Amino acid sequence: MVLEKINSPKDVKSLNIDEMNILAQEIRNAILNRVNTVGGHLGPDLGIVEATIALHYVFNSPEDKIIFDVSHQCYPHKILTGRKRGFLDPLNNYDISGYSNPKESEHDHFVIGHTSTSVSLATGLAKARDLNGEKSNIVAIIGDGSLSGGEAFEGFNNAAVLNSNIIIIVNDNEMSIAQNQGGLYKNLETLRKTNGKSENNVFTALGFEYRYVDDGNNVEDLINAFKQVKDTDRPTVVHIHTLKGKGYKPAEENKEAYHWQLPGFLDKKISGGSCEDYFSITTDYILNKHDKKLIAISPATPGATGLSTEFRAALGKNYTDVGIAEGHAVAYASGLATGSAKPVLFVLSSFLQRAYDQLSQDLALNNSPATILVGWGGISGADMTHLQTFDIPLISNIPNIVYLAPTCKEEYLRMLDWSIEQDKFPVAIRVPSNELISTGIEDKTDYSVLNKYKIEEQGEKVAIIGLGSFFPLAKEVKNELKKSGINATLINPRFITGIDRKVLDGLKANHKVVVTLEDGILDGGFGEKIARYFGSSDIKVLNFGGDKEFTDRIPVEKLYEKYRLTKEQIADDIKKLL
Amino acid sequence: MVLEKINSPKDVKSLNIDEMNILAQEIRNAILNRVNTVGGHLGPDLGIVEATIALHYVFNSPEDKIIFDVSHQCYPHKILTGRKRGFLDPLNNYDISGYSNPKESEHDHFVIGHTSTSVSLATGLAKARDLNGEKSNIVAIIGDGSLSGGEAFEGFNNAAVLNSNIIIIVNDNEMSIAQNQGGLYKNLETLRKTNGKSENNVFTALGFEYRYVDDGNNVEDLINAFKQVKDTDRPTVVHIHTLKGKGYKPAEENKEAYHWQLPGFLDKKISGGSCEDYFSITTDYILNKHDKKLIAISPATPGATGLSTEFRAALGKNYTDVGIAEGHAVAYASGLATGSAKPVLFVLSSFLQRAYDQLSQDLALNNSPATILVGWGGISGADMTHLQTFDIPLISNIPNIVYLAPTCKEEYLRMLDWSIEQDKFPVAIRVPSNELISTGIEDKTDYSVLNKYKIEEQGEKVAIIGLGSFFPLAKEVKNELKKSGINATLINPRFITGIDRKVLDGLKANHKVVVTLEDGILDGGFGEKIARYFGSSDIKVLNFGGDKEFTDRIPVEKLYEKYRLTKEQIADDIKKLL
Repeated sequence: MVLEKINSPKDVKSLNIDEMNILAQEIRNAILNRVNTVGGHLGPDLGIVEATIALHYVFNSPEDKIIFDVSHQCYPHKILTGRKRGFLDPLNNYDISGYSNPKESEHDHFVIGHTSTSVSLATGLAKARDLNGEKSNIVAIIGDGSLSGGEAFEGFNNAAVLNSNIIIIVNDNEMSIAQNQGGLYKNLETLRKTNGKSENNVFTALGFEYRYVDDGNNVEDLINAFKQVKDTDRPTVVHIHTLKGKGYKPAEENKEAYHWQLPGFLDKKISGGSCEDYFSITTDYILNKHDKKLIAISPATPGATGLSTEFRAALGKNYTDVGIAEGHAVAYASGLATGSAKPVLFVLSSFLQRAYDQLSQDLALNNSPATILVGWGGISGADMTHLQTFDIPLISNIPNIVYLAPTCKEEYLRMLDWSIEQDKFPVAIRVPSNELISTGIEDKTDYSVLNKYKIEEQGEKVAIIGLGSFFPLAKEVKNELKKSGINATLINPRFITGIDRKVLDGLKANHKVVVTLEDGILDGGFGEKIARYFGSSDIKVLNFGGDKEFTDRIPVEKLYEKYRLTKEQIADDIKKLL
Repeated sequence: MVLEKINSPKDVKSLNIDEMNILAQEIRNAILNRVNTVGGHLGPDLGIVEATIALHYVFNSPEDKIIFDVSHQCYPHKILTGRKRGFLDPLNNYDISGYSNPKESEHDHFVIGHTSTSVSLATGLAKARDLNGEKSNIVAIIGDGSLSGGEAFEGFNNAAVLNSNIIIIVNDNEMSIAQNQGGLYKNLETLRKTNGKSENNVFTALGFEYRYVDDGNNVEDLINAFKQVKDTDRPTVVHIHTLKGKGYKPAEENKEAYHWQLPGFLDKKISGGSCEDYFSITTDYILNKHDKKLIAISPATPGATGLSTEFRAALGKNYTDVGIAEGHAVAYASGLATGSAKPVLFVLSSFLQRAYDQLSQDLALNNSPATILVGWGGISGADMTHLQTFDIPLISNIPNIVYLAPTCKEEYLRMLDWSIEQDKFPVAIRVPSNELISTGIEDKTDYSVLNKYKIEEQGEKVAIIGLGSFFPLAKEVKNELKKSGINATLINPRFITGIDRKVLDGLKANHKVVVTLEDGILDGGFGEKIARYFGSSDIKVLNFGGDKEFTDRIPVEKLYEKYRLTKEQIADDIKKLL
């Protein structure tokens, strides 16, 4: 076993090509082993094994600095830089994260998890090197769909005029998470077809030196190419053509499904999951509507929001994958709405962060009646790069946008239908992150009457306002308080972006404490607005939610306990105030 | 006078070339007249006069839809679409805004003021047209520096695969607000030098049809080019080479200074202003430091943040203008800080909105010790597209970032120096938007002890927390309360991003009301955090600041009155609670 002897990049340097090819296979096995144990990115990492070996053979990490975009392709890099135990030993799998992290290794330079950032970060590192009068190679590796994000282009634009060493490896595996989208990817295709010879070359047009490696899974070819560009004094692109999922047949054949996998995937067939959930009822709704003006939009994450290949095929020209480009997606939706189409954008809470200014300027300022479905919002045990706890402060402090928080299937569908059919407001809906709840009672609310909270159960002394996916928790707290003889009022606010003065003022007569529960950070969120509203009154307010912090793979139960979000803790805190 | 007869675009269609050239001169005079009366963009509009005439001659607005990027170049368009009174008659100048607005005219399709959005919005409009089965030309006009923003590239990338009519006019005036930056602009230069013939062409690489017009101020050439692309069924770029400031010599010769002008500029020489202000003391500080690791960064707005041409020249390689690319600017700063340089990013509150995810992921998650100077923050009479009231919610709800609010020169310089020299925190400083205040007392605070508020004057019953540029207002309120015999405590919090529990808890003993004053919207801001903190106590909290709304050119005094921000209103509200 070659991998046995590899404890740092310098051990790679003594290998010959045959040993490197054996090592590649061993790394693939290690990746499969890890993903089967803890889940994670699969196809992207299988595809970049040889390139990573070649990088560490040619360059001298950590003096030479290698920055992986998204860093979901850094598994082989981790294996070669002293962290193979996180891939070989199930007991250690959880010690090592799925993304780069300087706290894990001197060979990592940034915590990275969002896309399209590597070139900008690397340009800063390269400029710092030059200011410090140092010499080293700065290598950014970008691809797998990340090229379409605006920050990547901004980075390319400025890296091109750095007038110094920066090497950008464009890992062209012909894919994003799903199919690649956009003119840039057509250019990559042209370059592949001409073996890198086409004059039509976006990289040389921007001012880069350019090299092409057609077999990006051939370690010898890669080593030759990397040697030629090492220590260059010019901004340089090395375009390598790799096979996503390489070496594991199911992943080669079904690239989208094997982009990321759940634990245990080796032992079972991949199934789309047939249970009803909030996204499946959304796609059912859209398909049943047969509305030629309705258009579904995904920023390259269709799978994560339940947009199956069948759904996309059925919609045809009424579906656009804009690539990883959330900013454009929001502006595109605004343009569509202005043109009397009915855009529905499917996006994850964490990734919508890339579109703040577009939400504000392109959408809200124009009052464009687009619908944005915000998925996965809430406190979770996710990696610190993929937290979904910031969308309430992000969206709800922008004027004009109506941000809705449904608590069940019936409310959700009513809100969705209202949003799509109305023409006055930009609407975002926080798709509940908990399991689908159906009350069986049709919701007939007119959501065009904004900021109307629903009193679900009238009580006294204590009012619990449970927002969206935390409404079930509010119910539990109410039941908990019952044990102490407290009959609390239960409120479903439904609107995140406004205050229902009538309902809140009505509480003053026979309530002493108002409690808010929200599934996200408290800072800048929903509860603070309630606290402000009651600030000058005699009502006491308790806000429950997450802290403003980046948590990293902490089990959600632990976070709930830390934030005092168990029903018992909440009830205790309330009782102390009575 | 030709302009006399022009009341809508159809009147342009009956003109001959000679009349159009006369019209161009009359439009220039009208622009000069308006800017001299109310201020506004000058060079960009003088440069695009002929192109606008040619567009309205060839295309049929409003069926054909013309979308101006930033829309600071839409003055000639406004003059030709029934709004010339806003340029000819001083009494009407204020009725017409300096940006596009559908409420003003059916020939405007969006409210636009931020850069790099036009292609994305236009792509949405074009797709809606196709879904609706309509026929029309969708024309986006972008240039004057806006090409470098990531959203522009995302838009180009998707417009390229629209497989339908979209025409993008790239207005290449060789400038941004200052000099253009980046590889893309080198490519435009190559294309100019080869009369559009170079094979090295970023637009054709992305998949666009491409045409070049070398004299973009020749109305006949423009008409010919536009006629050739009208009704095309392919995504098309028309690259026109224009002269920024055309027809007004000072603006042709000093393009940066005349990008935007103040009222009365025709009668006086442009001067940089010699008064000391917060930006001038910043540049003095940097120059006096002679630190080779220190690097100043501007996202194409050096003039707005006091970075004079002399300052930039003096810094040399220690200054980077990244072009309009705030996202990249933040990531670049993070990379620089990680590489042990000392980056200082100068950015306006409104434009920093484009960098939310980079602030969160590239900067805060990595705890990169960069310094961000946030300029112009506060309630103002600005256009609705350029409000600077959202930066507190934007920045202060992101973990790890230390956001500071100095109240005087001495505090500001101490904070700046601490931020640049420390290596633990990403720091943003809200450069006060009011006039420079000097207390003459050296600030010796150690700002590495986070979230320590300063009790400036100890009183009782009422505590007034005046944040940053509203600290002087807090003082005035204190004096106002004195008239009623109330000796209020006066607090300068200095830290926007944290709570000083010790100081706040200390208030509980002999205070009944805590008042917060902040120069921005209340939603998601500083005061709400204080309200939350005191929510379960007997302290009453009153938060003062702006409403969550887009205001449009409302004089600041009126806004203050509306938001109850005069010292008398605040004192009244406080007294009601006592």
